Amino acid sequence: MDALRARLDKAATAASLAGVDALLITPGSDLRYLIGAGGSSFERLTCLVLPVGGTPVLVVPKLEHPGYAGIPTDRLGVDVVTWVDGEDPYALVRAALKGNRVAVSDMMPALHTLGLRDALGGEQVLAGPVLRELRMRKDASEVAALRTAGAAIDRVHARMGEWLRPGRTEAEVGADIAAAIVDEGHVQADFVIVGSGPNGASPHHSLSDRVIEAGDVVVVDIGGLIAEGYCSDSTRNYVLGEPRDADVWETYAVLQAAQKAAVEAVRPGVTCAQVDAAAREIIADAGFGEFFVHRTGHGIGLDVHEEPYIVGGNDLPLEPGMAFSVEPGIYLPGRWGSRIEDIVVVTEDGVESVNNRPHELVVLPA
Amino acid sequence: MDALRARLDKAATAASLAGVDALLITPGSDLRYLIGAGGSSFERLTCLVLPVGGTPVLVVPKLEHPGYAGIPTDRLGVDVVTWVDGEDPYALVRAALKGNRVAVSDMMPALHTLGLRDALGGEQVLAGPVLRELRMRKDASEVAALRTAGAAIDRVHARMGEWLRPGRTEAEVGADIAAAIVDEGHVQADFVIVGSGPNGASPHHSLSDRVIEAGDVVVVDIGGLIAEGYCSDSTRNYVLGEPRDADVWETYAVLQAAQKAAVEAVRPGVTCAQVDAAAREIIADAGFGEFFVHRTGHGIGLDVHEEPYIVGGNDLPLEPGMAFSVEPGIYLPGRWGSRIEDIVVVTEDGVESVNNRPHELVVLPA
Repeated sequence: MDALRARLDKAATAASLAGVDALLITPGSDLRYLIGAGGSSFERLTCLVLPVGGTPVLVVPKLEHPGYAGIPTDRLGVDVVTWVDGEDPYALVRAALKGNRVAVSDMMPALHTLGLRDALGGEQVLAGPVLRELRMRKDASEVAALRTAGAAIDRVHARMGEWLRPGRTEAEVGADIAAAIVDEGHVQADFVIVGSGPNGASPHHSLSDRVIEAGDVVVVDIGGLIAEGYCSDSTRNYVLGEPRDADVWETYAVLQAAQKAAVEAVRPGVTCAQVDAAAREIIADAGFGEFFVHRTGHGIGLDVHEEPYIVGGNDLPLEPGMAFSVEPGIYLPGRWGSRIEDIVVVTEDGVESVNNRPHELVVLPA
Repeated sequence: MDALRARLDKAATAASLAGVDALLITPGSDLRYLIGAGGSSFERLTCLVLPVGGTPVLVVPKLEHPGYAGIPTDRLGVDVVTWVDGEDPYALVRAALKGNRVAVSDMMPALHTLGLRDALGGEQVLAGPVLRELRMRKDASEVAALRTAGAAIDRVHARMGEWLRPGRTEAEVGADIAAAIVDEGHVQADFVIVGSGPNGASPHHSLSDRVIEAGDVVVVDIGGLIAEGYCSDSTRNYVLGEPRDADVWETYAVLQAAQKAAVEAVRPGVTCAQVDAAAREIIADAGFGEFFVHRTGHGIGLDVHEEPYIVGGNDLPLEPGMAFSVEPGIYLPGRWGSRIEDIVVVTEDGVESVNNRPHELVVLPA
């Protein structure tokens, strides 16, 4: 709770530095970060008004108010204003504001963004650039939560041989994995990618009715949400017996070297772009540059994808507490693909990985 | 597919009538309505540009493009433009436009709403009021899908006695219900409310660790998504043995009469407000007006909550094909509550309910 109070204070300070009069935060991970509850409504406005130099106000539909019963708004110094159908919630936001240059949460639906624009006048900018300065520097409790999430998803990968075998469809295997994600300590499975054979060459393939065959390389990229609100995300690669394609072992060794080099590049002061380059150069030097079609990683925390992004051009220097994926891939269209992904945290003098399963291509029985 | 082509044409016509140059539709149910795939990305822009008098263009990240492989964009007359990290997707939207008065989907995240505002200049309004004119008038295939969804959730309610009994927590019962929602024909459970005893008096209570007791009235409000993309949503009420509170039977009879009167009021030409009033008057006349704290219903289709809303002040006249919930409730704080909910469809001369379980308070063994 004191951590939440401190976040509200820091957010107001950051808003002031950004030159806005208030942050307007609708349900989502920004709201969870600031008051400990993410909310869930869409068409009825719930909005935390966090004014610079004023009292935070949570505007919430009366019938959704019980959902915030666990939030110690009194101790957080947050006033609560409820509204019922037929009332104008935007007027309640306006009443809580001094000044009308506001930063709105990146996830705010246009329904409310434009509703507030019309009700407030003034100017709207994004709250993301303000809040990411806080959110991308994880405190000790957040790093601990990411470790818990990482260990939970590692336990799922450790059990892959229970489910992944020839003759089953990706969807069947995926259903078992989704159940195991919950069994191993998540409150929900967020995504399950089982990319077998040629499907592995599509980075965002999820599941299909393709029957897995002996000789397939299979990309398994999985993640879920733990009770503390933080996300897991880890990719490992499996092969059913001897790989069908003759180039698998050699190509996979390039990928493994690239992922290792990128992780080892992580330390305070190194830029996001430099981490991306560490992986990309090895892959390009081996002649696979055109087959690594995405950025090297994304930040992770209350969202699966958040700042910092590990991508060329991002000259943000890393700092202790930043957490992100390192996940280069090589995708050979129509044949096979692979991707190795760990979530890492920047430490005072280097890097800690919260995923600790072996990186080798794991051979399962065909 | 021809239905989708017709929807694109109708949407462009509606946009023209609304005085905008184009609709800009990001992932969500509007996108699913128009091209048959809802998409899923957040921070990378996917956007259907639907210009008045021009060719629709789907701007999509290259690595998410395979997710649209099932969409016959050629036959729909939709051009596809892909982009990769580092490119400016807003410039691609601008290139697909003539004129810059645009309507953005209600769900568009502020990240993209403000990004497009800055890239396009011009004016932004909401696409919701344009598209709801199409979406709230369901065609025969959509009504058939709502019937399928309604029958599936009815089968879950029919099995409630398997799970709901004293000594179990709401959360335990809820987990069984969630599994049954999938077993009975949904692709996912969207929400499970088990409001036992005093928790039933909070309309948006979901689940808790409260142990259900003999004598509890229990509100069970459940819904899911079927493969066709349409939603179910139905509420029934159960009591474990004889109700603890002496006023249950009499009060419940008022609620049942109110729900029945509202359903019977539904026919073409009657307004949404009149349907709301039909339920509200009966509850108010019996002295419970202050305990019916929400609107009578919401439209349903590809979204669980959509137009038309059955609420005082909404003078929209009903038309054949409109589909919505009729769900009055009476909530007695600290004691118990109940709500009866059917999804109904307006027919040529009256009403059809897609939920057909008995409305009575169901007595289960204590």
